Amino acid sequence: MSLAVPPGPAQVIARTLDLNCDLGESFGVYRYGADEAVMPLVTSANVACGAHAGDPRTMRTSVELAARHGVAVGAHVGLPDREGFGRRMISVTAEEARDLCLAQMGALSAFTRAAGTPLVHLKLHGALYMMAMGDADLADAVCGAVLGFDASLRVVALPASALATSARAHGLTVVEEFFADRPYRNGQVTMFGWTPEELGPPEAAAGRVEAMLADPTCSSIGTVCVHSDTPGAPALLQAVSDRLRRLGCDLRAPSTAASTPRT
Amino acid sequence: MSLAVPPGPAQVIARTLDLNCDLGESFGVYRYGADEAVMPLVTSANVACGAHAGDPRTMRTSVELAARHGVAVGAHVGLPDREGFGRRMISVTAEEARDLCLAQMGALSAFTRAAGTPLVHLKLHGALYMMAMGDADLADAVCGAVLGFDASLRVVALPASALATSARAHGLTVVEEFFADRPYRNGQVTMFGWTPEELGPPEAAAGRVEAMLADPTCSSIGTVCVHSDTPGAPALLQAVSDRLRRLGCDLRAPSTAASTPRT
Amino acid sequence: MSLAVPPGPAQVIARTLDLNCDLGESFGVYRYGADEAVMPLVTSANVACGAHAGDPRTMRTSVELAARHGVAVGAHVGLPDREGFGRRMISVTAEEARDLCLAQMGALSAFTRAAGTPLVHLKLHGALYMMAMGDADLADAVCGAVLGFDASLRVVALPASALATSARAHGLTVVEEFFADRPYRNGQVTMFGWTPEELGPPEAAAGRVEAMLADPTCSSIGTVCVHSDTPGAPALLQAVSDRLRRLGCDLRAPSTAASTPRT
Amino acid sequence: MSLAVPPGPAQVIARTLDLNCDLGESFGVYRYGADEAVMPLVTSANVACGAHAGDPRTMRTSVELAARHGVAVGAHVGLPDREGFGRRMISVTAEEARDLCLAQMGALSAFTRAAGTPLVHLKLHGALYMMAMGDADLADAVCGAVLGFDASLRVVALPASALATSARAHGLTVVEEFFADRPYRNGQVTMFGWTPEELGPPEAAAGRVEAMLADPTCSSIGTVCVHSDTPGAPALLQAVSDRLRRLGCDLRAPSTAASTPRT
Repeated sequence: MSLAVPPGPAQVIARTLDLNCDLGESFGVYRYGADEAVMPLVTSANVACGAHAGDPRTMRTSVELAARHGVAVGAHVGLPDREGFGRRMISVTAEEARDLCLAQMGALSAFTRAAGTPLVHLKLHGALYMMAMGDADLADAVCGAVLGFDASLRVVALPASALATSARAHGLTVVEEFFADRPYRNGQVTMFGWTPEELGPPEAAAGRVEAMLADPTCSSIGTVCVHSDTPGAPALLQAVSDRLRRLGCDLRAPSTAASTPRT
Repeated sequence: MSLAVPPGPAQVIARTLDLNCDLGESFGVYRYGADEAVMPLVTSANVACGAHAGDPRTMRTSVELAARHGVAVGAHVGLPDREGFGRRMISVTAEEARDLCLAQMGALSAFTRAAGTPLVHLKLHGALYMMAMGDADLADAVCGAVLGFDASLRVVALPASALATSARAHGLTVVEEFFADRPYRNGQVTMFGWTPEELGPPEAAAGRVEAMLADPTCSSIGTVCVHSDTPGAPALLQAVSDRLRRLGCDLRAPSTAASTPRT
Repeated sequence: MSLAVPPGPAQVIARTLDLNCDLGESFGVYRYGADEAVMPLVTSANVACGAHAGDPRTMRTSVELAARHGVAVGAHVGLPDREGFGRRMISVTAEEARDLCLAQMGALSAFTRAAGTPLVHLKLHGALYMMAMGDADLADAVCGAVLGFDASLRVVALPASALATSARAHGLTVVEEFFADRPYRNGQVTMFGWTPEELGPPEAAAGRVEAMLADPTCSSIGTVCVHSDTPGAPALLQAVSDRLRRLGCDLRAPSTAASTPRT
Repeated sequence: MSLAVPPGPAQVIARTLDLNCDLGESFGVYRYGADEAVMPLVTSANVACGAHAGDPRTMRTSVELAARHGVAVGAHVGLPDREGFGRRMISVTAEEARDLCLAQMGALSAFTRAAGTPLVHLKLHGALYMMAMGDADLADAVCGAVLGFDASLRVVALPASALATSARAHGLTVVEEFFADRPYRNGQVTMFGWTPEELGPPEAAAGRVEAMLADPTCSSIGTVCVHSDTPGAPALLQAVSDRLRRLGCDLRAPSTAASTPRT
């Protein structure tokens, strides 16, 4: 993905896009992320499943909050490392990865069932996300879990990643992701070790998203992510959302044909 | 329930009974219970869901083992106290109880789905089992979880318990339970603090089950439990199973109309 | 303890008092409590030991923060229930209570050693605190742990509690505690289920502490607690501290004869 | 280390050696390892500290068992990954490694204090052991923890490892380790992924230890390890112990000058 060429306005083609957010990461007495503020602004919510973050109550309240706002719910599956928030690499086997995806998707699905809202996608978290983007065996294991659990779930992945490749090979639907709140260096997203200065103000994030839309190598991007724990996440989401609507984009979750667009 | 009157043979009425076992309680490198040995002998398996015991791999292997043996699978939901094995009372609120039931039923259901076998019942574990038998609020919370998740799940409960009462009031199907490997004192099951001497040899357990069958106050019992971690569980189950078949009972899981009887 | 009689100013007798605070309850990415703001205002810090809250990094940074401010460090030992923050009763045995006290005091002591500051007291947390105040077996187990680990540790306890009684019987030094940020009903502290309205503004807390000082039945109180997670804890501590100094009290940790008074 | 040259008997020089064992790895209801059987056969016990394995009760009983047998106690510090038994690599920072070493050494030290027996060494476990042998930053962090906690603790390490180098640079005493129950390939110990066939019978282990003694490149080895969870650990330890005594070795913990030799 090259973001080097500054886009002219004529290059921007209005299209359907999803705005997703990682949330539901509170735990016990610990509050985390601006979930209430961001939920009205997004079209998909990736809800933590109680391994790297979240707990049964947080899963329930997050799913209910999403349902009230008509936001599509996905399982945000992470490594079982609450102390490290799922951001530390753990050398799990492919079989372990498959099993932890199943357990976590299942746990969250009980709350979507109880709330009467469908579970529509899987998005990995933190270190597991990065590991599965580069490791074909892990990617296959994740896809095996999705096939075993619900083959209609969409799989969120980086473009040209091992996970995107594996998901397509398994007949799963892939939603390619762009990060509005992470710097890209040489076309590669920088998940860890970035500075707020690199990120810039909300308008800079909106600008990165507009540049992405104008970049022909990014035409397959289906969803844009902002994390609920990024400082200033609500303002950032508002800026990105405003910009996308000004550009004529139709903001809606990819998975719900009948979903009402976010206005 | 009175077990005082010694049964005459004429009192025994052949009926359909379920033989259930708590299992899937291994964790990481730790092996626990005689799961492989008991699975061929039972008709229902209550599989731990990763809170008091079990983990993703153990859930998967337990469900697959049950499926291979045609054994009905239920969620064995416990308090989140791995160190205490779910046997210590924790003062959870009704809402916490509901949420932990949902999370655990959901987690296990991912593995039953992946294995192509249905999840057919809920049985609480240890301290949570005893708490919900006596506390109407907890019992209602558990039933609310079942209704929200899958109202067709059968609920295993002690006769005349708060949970049995609540489940029926919520329109759920109850399976009343008798414990072959726990002493009854004054008609009340003794879950903790018993001695092997009280339990006696396998034939004594079989005798207790036969006495139960002959006891008119026990006519509503639908399932007989032996725990996989009771010393000598396989021999105990074999004795109980042999006795029941000699008495003409039809051993099968209550939830699966089309299930093949255990021979 | 009776707080009903309004104190006249003449009744107030200046004395040495300790101001303590429960803190170090952050965990992983989760921030909790106003530790940095309260540390300059207190004379003793009860640092969570990684069971109900805290983790190795938080233990280290909390101990180092206390050392920089000349604040006495104690082990704040809680039930192993991170999800419930140690506030849910768990039916631990006396032996389990003894062992968890040892493990937690030991863990924290490694960080006090590394920071070159002594560990000077034990204060139980949440449900374990309340349980040990009323249960002589648990109280004896806690005292057994202190004796085994370091008999010079002071034990913080409610006046006339099982723990105070047991500690004295074991030859340990007791520091009796008053809670400035919890309502007292009929002379009994209300740890859970209180409302901010009952608590009132900071001056109300200062007033409660002044009334306690004037109450002859409270003459044995040696320490006053404010929790770092009580809303407005720093302002509350400032008000209590100002009032105590105006009344001529000498604020210092009881355990450190040579400690410089907090000015 | 080269083990290729078959030793002649004349090469064997009687010396003082330590026989160590990783144990105390039970947890809750889960029993693990042949601790009771191996304790009479070893001179040092590496006791798990509640992170990768063990719990407060197991720490206490293991330390008491060691004390009864005159066995030197060390902290067996592992990654906080109970589900993976500390065998999965986790990308902890050096600071995290330092803090987890402190917390775990501290926790165990409470039980050695209560039992009246000294804590005399540190041995890392599983993935953390291997990581610190090859990574200088992690090794320095571990040594920093030892220095902060108790600079008299001996550090068990592989010969020529980053940890041995760092420990010496920090002025700590190193005990170099040989594994009797792990295959060596090209002079490198194979911790994971070996087969029982490679290991051979107890006499083969004794033979490997004898070959090591005869190997001049192994003259700095001070301790020989057998894991309590290796199948047949007691027989293996007996064979190694018998062989060493036949060769005239003095079996004792290096850390206890006054220790009675194991007879």
